[in-house]
Amino acid sequence: MDQYMKAALDEARQGAEEGGIPIGAALVDKEGNLVATGRNRRVQDLAVIMHAEINCLYNAGKLADSFRGMTMYSTLMPCHMCAGAALQFGITKVIVGESENFQDNGLDLMLRHGIEVIDLDLDEAKELLAEFIERNPSEWYGDIGRIE
Amino acid sequence: MDQYMKAALDEARQGAEEGGIPIGAALVDKEGNLVATGRNRRVQDLAVIMHAEINCLYNAGKLADSFRGMTMYSTLMPCHMCAGAALQFGITKVIVGESENFQDNGLDLMLRHGIEVIDLDLDEAKELLAEFIERNPSEWYGDIGRIE
Repeated sequence: MDQYMKAALDEARQGAEEGGIPIGAALVDKEGNLVATGRNRRVQDLAVIMHAEINCLYNAGKLADSFRGMTMYSTLMPCHMCAGAALQFGITKVIVGESENFQDNGLDLMLRHGIEVIDLDLDEAKELLAEFIERNPSEWYGDIGRIE
Repeated sequence: MDQYMKAALDEARQGAEEGGIPIGAALVDKEGNLVATGRNRRVQDLAVIMHAEINCLYNAGKLADSFRGMTMYSTLMPCHMCAGAALQFGITKVIVGESENFQDNGLDLMLRHGIEVIDLDLDEAKELLAEFIERNPSEWYGDIGRIE
């Protein structure tokens, strides 16, 4: 596994240790520098929109004015909000750990707008999130907007 | 003008007073209660992703677990990230002040997924943002992901 997906998985695990939803992300510039990392903070901050990718771009905003041409790593296929963020800010490649745990995602939106998407289909990413969902279904279904 | 768009415009004006990008948002539940407001905080917080709608949903996360069936007001037509957020969290109606200042927006994404979108085409909203763009083009083009 490359160092960037490892950084995203480390964020996911740190989220799990905090009792949060274990999804992590990392942003890498065109020269291969790690710009920022982030993790889902829904539980920790009562922040519904703080998905891992949004948190990563939030952190990156302190360091970079533009994300054009950068690559986003995420342990999970981005939702429509996070896919839309990639599109809005000119991210050209998205590499994900898995897409099995969340299928109503933003893949089509990214592909339609020419973002390259690679799904590594990693057992490690799948198992980490699947275990959380089994133990905390209400947090998870809130995170994907499926509770009333 | 209804009270909710007025609340969004008040946020936009407060942003302008802080030197920020004057875009505001408000979230209203099915019973017509104002759940939260927010404003673009790109300049104030060095937070590229803190568009008005994202900031509003961030604030709302402290107060509501779910935004399903709610209405989002924004002084500007949402970008793909903010449109994706509406979709992800089950917002069913989006009422905007204008769409003239930003045309590469998320309207199609919202319509394709059945979100009702109403554009009030308000001179007040258009003028407030147009003045900012004229004075601060680099902040604006960064906000819409159009700088390298």
